[in-house]
Amino acid sequence: MKPLERVRIAVDCMGGDHGPSVTLAACRDFLATHADAELVLVGTEQALAPVAQWDRCRVVLATEVVAMDDPVEVALRRKRDSSMRVAIQQLKPDAAGATQADACVSAGNTGALMAVSRYILKTLDGIDRPAIAAMLPNSRGGLTKVLDLGANVDCSAQHLLQFAVMGSALVSALDGKEQPTVGLLNIGEEIIKGSETIKQAGELLRQCAAAGLINFYGNVEGNDIFKGTTDLVVCDGFVGNVALKTSEGVASLMGTLIKEEFTRNLWTRMAAVVAMPVLNRFKARVDHRRYSGGALLGLRGLVFKAHGSSDALGFERAMSRAYDAARNRLLDRVHERIEVTLQAMPAAAPADSPVKTAA
Amino acid sequence: MKPLERVRIAVDCMGGDHGPSVTLAACRDFLATHADAELVLVGTEQALAPVAQWDRCRVVLATEVVAMDDPVEVALRRKRDSSMRVAIQQLKPDAAGATQADACVSAGNTGALMAVSRYILKTLDGIDRPAIAAMLPNSRGGLTKVLDLGANVDCSAQHLLQFAVMGSALVSALDGKEQPTVGLLNIGEEIIKGSETIKQAGELLRQCAAAGLINFYGNVEGNDIFKGTTDLVVCDGFVGNVALKTSEGVASLMGTLIKEEFTRNLWTRMAAVVAMPVLNRFKARVDHRRYSGGALLGLRGLVFKAHGSSDALGFERAMSRAYDAARNRLLDRVHERIEVTLQAMPAAAPADSPVKTAA
Repeated sequence: MKPLERVRIAVDCMGGDHGPSVTLAACRDFLATHADAELVLVGTEQALAPVAQWDRCRVVLATEVVAMDDPVEVALRRKRDSSMRVAIQQLKPDAAGATQADACVSAGNTGALMAVSRYILKTLDGIDRPAIAAMLPNSRGGLTKVLDLGANVDCSAQHLLQFAVMGSALVSALDGKEQPTVGLLNIGEEIIKGSETIKQAGELLRQCAAAGLINFYGNVEGNDIFKGTTDLVVCDGFVGNVALKTSEGVASLMGTLIKEEFTRNLWTRMAAVVAMPVLNRFKARVDHRRYSGGALLGLRGLVFKAHGSSDALGFERAMSRAYDAARNRLLDRVHERIEVTLQAMPAAAPADSPVKTAA
Repeated sequence: MKPLERVRIAVDCMGGDHGPSVTLAACRDFLATHADAELVLVGTEQALAPVAQWDRCRVVLATEVVAMDDPVEVALRRKRDSSMRVAIQQLKPDAAGATQADACVSAGNTGALMAVSRYILKTLDGIDRPAIAAMLPNSRGGLTKVLDLGANVDCSAQHLLQFAVMGSALVSALDGKEQPTVGLLNIGEEIIKGSETIKQAGELLRQCAAAGLINFYGNVEGNDIFKGTTDLVVCDGFVGNVALKTSEGVASLMGTLIKEEFTRNLWTRMAAVVAMPVLNRFKARVDHRRYSGGALLGLRGLVFKAHGSSDALGFERAMSRAYDAARNRLLDRVHERIEVTLQAMPAAAPADSPVKTAA
């Protein structure tokens, strides 16, 4: 697939815990390192006053802001002129099929972002539920993609297969691997392990692998995410969320313990001074900002989510991922893979949503 | 409840990756620090030859050993004279209600241990499925108890409630807290979050809390396990297993990264020498052997599981937990709490197992 020559990113400048102070700093850094990028900056008139003269930027005003604790209903029904919503709207094709942007980035609240994206953009044919993919560091020095981390609880085997197909497209767009390996998150490697749904999903994934549609590795366990056993790990949103929060919890506990040990007394504080450069490098490697940027997959538009607490580095990372995804035509890739899969494997279509495939 | 005056622990001396070389060393350490304990050492004649003269020990011979990779069926049906099975049998009451031991410890394979325990001991009245509870370190310096980490996938709300009741008994026996706080592992704090089963479980737990049967805190997230937000965290076996393996994966990745950074070049190696005592203390605090010793709950006997790769320290820890549990009458506590709960809350009984409660 030929990459896009010019990549336009719509930015919700008001989202996140810090709003424009972070997002605009990130935009400036992003523009400096991405010569073929253009930005559509969405926010209130006051917030965007400083950017009027920026190169390769277009300002689109919005009068409202979705707060981090706004319920989904408020974002969806009441704040119809929010920066989040207007930013997403830039991805919606007009009558001639043209869009104002190729991807959108927001650090706004996840539930609202998913709901508004779904409402404005709709899901792709053959996709029942959009999913959120995160990127977690592994000991091979890469990033394991994991989905779903969104709110898709009670997933069926078909949903898990759709996640595998969309996730494969994501890895191919971000890492250039055309046939990334896919692991199914389970409680053991053997195919007899897991819940009924997981066993059915394993069966579906094996059928797809036999048909050459997917590079299915088999079952993986929680620790395989961080070993990098597979490029992609698929799970339902409940399990994925628990795994993500658990790993944040362990990392945070270990950070606390290291700090406690190095500040225990005068001697350990002196050791800390000597070890500081090394500890700082370690800290930089486990810095969650490096892994910022979840992808909302399965929508008719590319929406990326930055961590709500992102600083400029974290937000810029999310913008870079959105840029890579748009440049490498992630949307077309997802669409193509889903279509091919559903043509070859009608069983992959969820029972509750009749799927239209090209004749 | 008055503590036991004499605690008898049955030890499967052949289990685990290292067998008697580790278990017997652990037994020696354990006896040295537990003056009121007696051991029933179960193993082959050859393996137990060295212990013939040990004080406060009784040897019971077994002719077979369950291998770490033996399928459950082999442990259950073929190796009828295995050290694992004979050790568990020490917990089975005779016609007069007397047992040969108060708790049993094995580092043998988990699936086999659960299956054989269940077969030999049976489950307590009112318990549909035995569960495995683990103890994970938290930033308050304590150990959060988490269950189920066993093979109970597809749990119902009633099962989750049973886990909460059994887990509360475990915390009360090990930590002396009579009304430990209970968290329901979920993907958000709000009661509308989660799968249907989780929402029903939340409802049941709230009813139990209102009736004064349980100290229900509400929903918790994955990171709360390591924050120590609640004394106990309840989840189904699938989610629990993923959370446990994920945390092992993160801890292992962070250990690898620290090592990589400190061995990067001559300067960092010198820093490592200075920081070594601090790093070693840190390492000791995150050492998984300190958290060894899962409890199999819901059986008519106390069975504790040591990590398969346990060394003497890890195995001794598991023995100590079994000792604490037996001494503080964990079995009676579980039994009492389940009975009281089921009398007050008939809805807590799983539909698929009619429950007998005392009249």
